[in-house]
Amino acid sequence: MRHTKVKDLLNSTTTLQEVNAKGWVRTFRNNQFIALNDGSTINNIQCVVDFENTPDEILKRITTGAAVSVTGNLVESKGAGQKYEIKVAKLEILGDSDPEKFPMQPKKHSLEFLRENAHLRVRTNSFGAIMRIRSVLSFAVHNYFQQKGFVYVNTPIITGADAEGAGEMFQVTSLPLDNLPKTEEGTIDYKKDFFGKHTNLTVSGQLEGETFAMALGQIYTFGPTFRAENSNTSRHLAEFWMIEPEVAFNDLDANMDLAEDFIQYVIKYALDNCGDDLKFLEGRLLEEEKSKPQAERSEMTLLEKLNFVLENNFKRVSYTEAIDILRESTPNKKKKFSYIINEWGADLQSEHERYLVEKHFKCPVILFDYPANIKAFYMRLNEDGKTVRAMDILFPGIGEIVGGSQREERFDVLVEKMKALGIDEKELSWYLDTRRFGSAVHSGFGLGFERLVLFVTGMTNIRDVIPFPRTPGSAEF
Amino acid sequence: MRHTKVKDLLNSTTTLQEVNAKGWVRTFRNNQFIALNDGSTINNIQCVVDFENTPDEILKRITTGAAVSVTGNLVESKGAGQKYEIKVAKLEILGDSDPEKFPMQPKKHSLEFLRENAHLRVRTNSFGAIMRIRSVLSFAVHNYFQQKGFVYVNTPIITGADAEGAGEMFQVTSLPLDNLPKTEEGTIDYKKDFFGKHTNLTVSGQLEGETFAMALGQIYTFGPTFRAENSNTSRHLAEFWMIEPEVAFNDLDANMDLAEDFIQYVIKYALDNCGDDLKFLEGRLLEEEKSKPQAERSEMTLLEKLNFVLENNFKRVSYTEAIDILRESTPNKKKKFSYIINEWGADLQSEHERYLVEKHFKCPVILFDYPANIKAFYMRLNEDGKTVRAMDILFPGIGEIVGGSQREERFDVLVEKMKALGIDEKELSWYLDTRRFGSAVHSGFGLGFERLVLFVTGMTNIRDVIPFPRTPGSAEF
Repeated sequence: MRHTKVKDLLNSTTTLQEVNAKGWVRTFRNNQFIALNDGSTINNIQCVVDFENTPDEILKRITTGAAVSVTGNLVESKGAGQKYEIKVAKLEILGDSDPEKFPMQPKKHSLEFLRENAHLRVRTNSFGAIMRIRSVLSFAVHNYFQQKGFVYVNTPIITGADAEGAGEMFQVTSLPLDNLPKTEEGTIDYKKDFFGKHTNLTVSGQLEGETFAMALGQIYTFGPTFRAENSNTSRHLAEFWMIEPEVAFNDLDANMDLAEDFIQYVIKYALDNCGDDLKFLEGRLLEEEKSKPQAERSEMTLLEKLNFVLENNFKRVSYTEAIDILRESTPNKKKKFSYIINEWGADLQSEHERYLVEKHFKCPVILFDYPANIKAFYMRLNEDGKTVRAMDILFPGIGEIVGGSQREERFDVLVEKMKALGIDEKELSWYLDTRRFGSAVHSGFGLGFERLVLFVTGMTNIRDVIPFPRTPGSAEF
Repeated sequence: MRHTKVKDLLNSTTTLQEVNAKGWVRTFRNNQFIALNDGSTINNIQCVVDFENTPDEILKRITTGAAVSVTGNLVESKGAGQKYEIKVAKLEILGDSDPEKFPMQPKKHSLEFLRENAHLRVRTNSFGAIMRIRSVLSFAVHNYFQQKGFVYVNTPIITGADAEGAGEMFQVTSLPLDNLPKTEEGTIDYKKDFFGKHTNLTVSGQLEGETFAMALGQIYTFGPTFRAENSNTSRHLAEFWMIEPEVAFNDLDANMDLAEDFIQYVIKYALDNCGDDLKFLEGRLLEEEKSKPQAERSEMTLLEKLNFVLENNFKRVSYTEAIDILRESTPNKKKKFSYIINEWGADLQSEHERYLVEKHFKCPVILFDYPANIKAFYMRLNEDGKTVRAMDILFPGIGEIVGGSQREERFDVLVEKMKALGIDEKELSWYLDTRRFGSAVHSGFGLGFERLVLFVTGMTNIRDVIPFPRTPGSAEF
């Protein structure tokens, strides 16, 4: 007989004769009440065992983590907390779970302990919820762009282009490291490597994405990107998923409109489709904050925070205005910032971004028109000759969640910029072809998917919102 | 004024006053007719230039590949082939395209030439169509699984586990190859590498995916996977995208049902949503086949072939039956196969698979219950003790498109198998946890996405259905 998902049983509108459920025991109470979960929902279904007529050897094996199959009628529950429960007529142990050994016992585990057991933590309520939300958010991303006619483009993961300059890269090789082939000059002979050249893992699909946008009009990428940076922080991963839309004929204003609309859409999508999971995580956060002093607790609950983002426009502020605000701010005057803002041109640190978002504006902020010399070579130079059409979106608690720009569409200006920065023109000749042949205004941005999941789930460490985090010193599984 | 997409203009149900379109010139005929394309559809919109009142300097710059903005009324076309056209009142050249230099001239280019220009080939009709179909197929994949309540899981790309055994792996490192740190024993000191150990690019997310399926019930992956194999064929890529669903409580029959239903769904989705692009590619194929002798031409057109897959069940055949068929086949008896099938236990080569699919059954075939010793360690051993619950789906013209199995859920049997194959138990202890704690029957499969795109587009070389192909000796862009 085919089993029914716990979610469907809980959503049933009537009692049902003889249903079968399969899942894992979360708890077993009073030798009678199994809380059964199969991952389809955060909620368990209560299965009432006829313990008087069940052999002791079986009852003993109903332990946390065991896989069981239960068959019986779906009846109205006499207990509080659930509408329906299964009155078990037949119970089968599919797979045991030794309570002395199973690490995921029904008690509070530290997030550190759970991280070390990334393959099992997904059996907890919190991580089940996080991973379901992550999945729904991924789908929201595709939904949004596909509905608008964007083409999904898989830009390459292994790349021979290393001039992107977005960060430190991992090398990819099939050469035997203990016996490297050498050229006559004694250097490593990359002609003998798999691709016949030195290759790396991509840090961004933007440049390749631009070539497709200049043919298909509107494209987006959504794939893994990599940074070989030794950043052991709660906001950085060595391997993370990035979303990079690129749109021909969009200027920076249209780019900001797109980013804001997109973020609001996916958050609304999660609210509409992950109600139970979000409510659970909201409760988890409230519980966690009880141990904090009043001043450190959030002003809003998780759902209030998400709704706030939907109901309020992001504040658009030029870099120049932001510098004025920061220069006049109390923490700057009282020298509480680690980096004091003295003059125009300073690169903003995370402390400044947080001040703007969390203290000054108290809402998501889009900063735009940054000084040219602190931004990438491909950004459109403004008429003032010193700022570029860049934008960053800053979120409370998260910091930068989006970085984007209008691209420099003028061949001569772009080449001059590359020369000034020592970027090899030949190496990027294919990229320059977009400006050589049918160039046009175009814009795009990158959104770090895990930072979005972090914001929506209310978690505080990025390692807790990706199935198997890769960080310095850690690539288990 | 905001521009309107070419697709929307062509789908208009009325004439319109003053519209603006932006895109790239495909052709410019008689100093008067621009065929304008913006990537939103394979179809161009005809823009009629008032050449008598347009300066010669402008007319000269309307060349293939140039980006232009045209404004004017959308009027009924007097010419054949289109319902509406734009009567151009204002034309602006956004970006020139020197006809002496632009490689994508409106003539037939070889697929080899286009591959070398992967950043520009997407501006041709064929590659625009292929990339739009690829995108729609990707979305169909997500749609199918999300509607059924599967959770999308991003398994790791960089992996410290190298016991998967699915193929040769690429090494990932941040060590300086020209100055490798050494241990006291003189071996490479991987403790100093980024992750503190030797790491590779993933060949499959299955093992990690199984750990999630045993918590969330139904999951799927869809991400890049890698093979460092020197296979310079039209069916292999070093970097390709794979879809791997995994379902708790599914046996092999349910796994076959899922795979068949899934493939039929995504093909139907493409037929429903990519009509124009598929029709174009069907025409392209017919054109191409004109130069072939009658015997080598396809029996069905592209759309007929796709509909055939929808309307016919896949033929399910056990390995043992397949061996009997092959042994008795004419090419085997006449020794036309390179590998003659003599006895049970032989590994099937692509020539045998093609015979079964293209000559014998003439439809997609699911082969199942393979000999244990030619399949992976994690596959469920049958009661006969010599076959495993494996299945491969074979497609005409493509060969293997899916490989899957019911997994060995019995801890002891699995460990014994690993020991026999010399697979390190400790290394995969996390994987064995799924069998230690709450084990259950479960199954899954892997589908090579590019092979699916190959089948749906009717292309014959896998390098033509991925934006930037990675193959031995080639990692441009």
